Amino acid sequence: MRKHLDDYRQYAGDQVVDEIYDSASTLDGKHVVHVNSTYSGGGVAELLDTLVMLMNDVGLDTGWRILHGTPDFFEITKKFHNTLQGAEINLTNQKKRIYEGINERFSNYTHLYHDCVIVHDPQPLSMIQFYEKKQPWIWRLHIDISNLNQDGEKLFNYFKSFIVRYDAMIVSMDSYKKDIPVDQRVMRPSIDPLSPKNEVLSDQVIDRYLSKFGVDQDKPIICQVSRFDYFKDPEGVVKIFKKVREEIDCRLVLVGSMATDDPESEAIYKHMVKEYGDDPDIEIISALNHILVNALQRRSSVVLQKSLREGFALTVSEALWKGTPVVGSNVGGIPAQIIEGETGFLLDPLDYDGFADRVKMILGDDALSERLGEAGKEHVRNNFLVTRHLKDYFHLFREVIR
Amino acid sequence: MRKHLDDYRQYAGDQVVDEIYDSASTLDGKHVVHVNSTYSGGGVAELLDTLVMLMNDVGLDTGWRILHGTPDFFEITKKFHNTLQGAEINLTNQKKRIYEGINERFSNYTHLYHDCVIVHDPQPLSMIQFYEKKQPWIWRLHIDISNLNQDGEKLFNYFKSFIVRYDAMIVSMDSYKKDIPVDQRVMRPSIDPLSPKNEVLSDQVIDRYLSKFGVDQDKPIICQVSRFDYFKDPEGVVKIFKKVREEIDCRLVLVGSMATDDPESEAIYKHMVKEYGDDPDIEIISALNHILVNALQRRSSVVLQKSLREGFALTVSEALWKGTPVVGSNVGGIPAQIIEGETGFLLDPLDYDGFADRVKMILGDDALSERLGEAGKEHVRNNFLVTRHLKDYFHLFREVIR
Repeated sequence: MRKHLDDYRQYAGDQVVDEIYDSASTLDGKHVVHVNSTYSGGGVAELLDTLVMLMNDVGLDTGWRILHGTPDFFEITKKFHNTLQGAEINLTNQKKRIYEGINERFSNYTHLYHDCVIVHDPQPLSMIQFYEKKQPWIWRLHIDISNLNQDGEKLFNYFKSFIVRYDAMIVSMDSYKKDIPVDQRVMRPSIDPLSPKNEVLSDQVIDRYLSKFGVDQDKPIICQVSRFDYFKDPEGVVKIFKKVREEIDCRLVLVGSMATDDPESEAIYKHMVKEYGDDPDIEIISALNHILVNALQRRSSVVLQKSLREGFALTVSEALWKGTPVVGSNVGGIPAQIIEGETGFLLDPLDYDGFADRVKMILGDDALSERLGEAGKEHVRNNFLVTRHLKDYFHLFREVIR
Repeated sequence: MRKHLDDYRQYAGDQVVDEIYDSASTLDGKHVVHVNSTYSGGGVAELLDTLVMLMNDVGLDTGWRILHGTPDFFEITKKFHNTLQGAEINLTNQKKRIYEGINERFSNYTHLYHDCVIVHDPQPLSMIQFYEKKQPWIWRLHIDISNLNQDGEKLFNYFKSFIVRYDAMIVSMDSYKKDIPVDQRVMRPSIDPLSPKNEVLSDQVIDRYLSKFGVDQDKPIICQVSRFDYFKDPEGVVKIFKKVREEIDCRLVLVGSMATDDPESEAIYKHMVKEYGDDPDIEIISALNHILVNALQRRSSVVLQKSLREGFALTVSEALWKGTPVVGSNVGGIPAQIIEGETGFLLDPLDYDGFADRVKMILGDDALSERLGEAGKEHVRNNFLVTRHLKDYFHLFREVIR
């Protein structure tokens, strides 16, 4: 159950691994801690799982604390999340009281003697106000805040009073930086090539998982892997698929999990099944099965990521890493992963015809498909593997830890 | 959101509070940590919430860590729990591997520099094998292990290899001690008189909550507060109620939560609703609402605790603390709380007629009811408030921490 950096040499190359060891050796005896609000479900927990393990593996004592929330706390922080993504909120004093109260409660029994504290996302953001700061504090925000609406701006304004107490704020894209007096840096997220979602699978395992979940392989597969969420535009994906099918016989698979804390996603999933579940070429799967996702991304001819809005969309890197071409929307972190015409195709989210054309191009041209797939894999190898991410963290630690 | 020991003087008296302050002052600069596997739901989490807060309040730096499990891990530890309570298990190597694997994973990023480590229940029990022990480790078991079946003995044998590494094992009753070479102690659990479940409520609040959940107050109320679980014998409760109703018009309320990790409880709840939901005198409520429970325990004429088997059944102390007489089974920790004829009545769990007789006695005799209620409250004040529990912990810390 442990992870070892040396196991990543075969995927990431020696150079980045050696750099990480070099950095780690200068941090001997130091102790850092990550704080977030969940240890399962969602990209941030997956990311931390690997990062924290590897930091410990190379000799930096690295803790991982989970803020202990309550249902009403999580209801509020879910609203916060949605508001930063474009929803509305009534930011009452009661919401602030519950939000800060749970942070205070957590701080009461969370004693931080560490050399650096890294706080992830808004849930534990405000805990900093309950500490006498003895070390550098870093706030790591994993969502896109480049297009805040009025309520989003108001909410972010409220967050500012906490953010300015931090030594640095880290975002995933340059365009997510804000006009706020705090040191701001960019750190791209990453995928773990050794996780069940990305590890190499044998053909037998792929076949077994696809058949287990009812995915026939009689025709080329187009898929989108995403939570059932309005912003992932599953209806738009079906629209594109239907345009493609007018010319090329193929199959669509939509796979996503329904977060247990998200009644909306259940409604969207049910709606999709009701509307499109009878189409024999459309498979709608609600499952949180990493090997299924891995198998699908490997066996699909084209992966779509037709989001209207994104935090980063690591599903794009996941697919590219498997050599599968991706056609995606020009939003969030997708343009960092898809280099137009080189590692896939980028389109305006509302350009349905454009999406369908690109999918057809790939389905009809094996050489193009192979070229995109290979370039995509190299692009991910150089930019979106967890080793690169680890290297970034160690650079940061060397700079901020005295 | 903080808790202060001084606020407990009015309930627990000055003596115990002053003793706690005295003990705490001898532990200046020390740092202890509790480890369990959930921060919400269940008695252990509730208990820790108060204990950890108060330990910090009196100046002992006290951490609280949650073991980060996975669904298959929790499925296995749930099986462990049930097996200790009488169910069967096929203790395969794979189960052991997952169980210990998650403990190893957790230990990997959980760095314990503390002066004492207190590990609660079986879930994080095995983590000790992954540490170079630098401090006293205490294992605190909250369940009844006095009647292990064959599989239970086998499971406990497996646990032994971990338990013997600890400096002490704490159980809730003298009869739970085992023949095992480790220092064994008894510490009774406790209730928090200031928690939403036990705090004083105004008549208006009680009325509001009962009416909100559909509990009519036109007749005497008999209730049982317990998870929907076979071992709580909800069917037996209905049987007793029906015997009582033959002579005295009254109403039965069964209230319990369905743990989200427990499909069994959902089935039992549904069965109860189907079988008895149509009886106008029977109210079956599935809710995790502490104020409702508080209101019900205050407004009921008799509280039942007809368990077949129990960890401790703090619901008995909760009811007694509110001055409500309790008729309970002679199992687990119930005999420690109910002194026969003085603070309530104790019966063999299968003595339905006996249960019904005692309930009728109480319903028909106001003086008896008042006498039992008052004695019950004093018994809880002296033995089952969290202040007594805190005092026990400080005694232990003074002894084991150098």
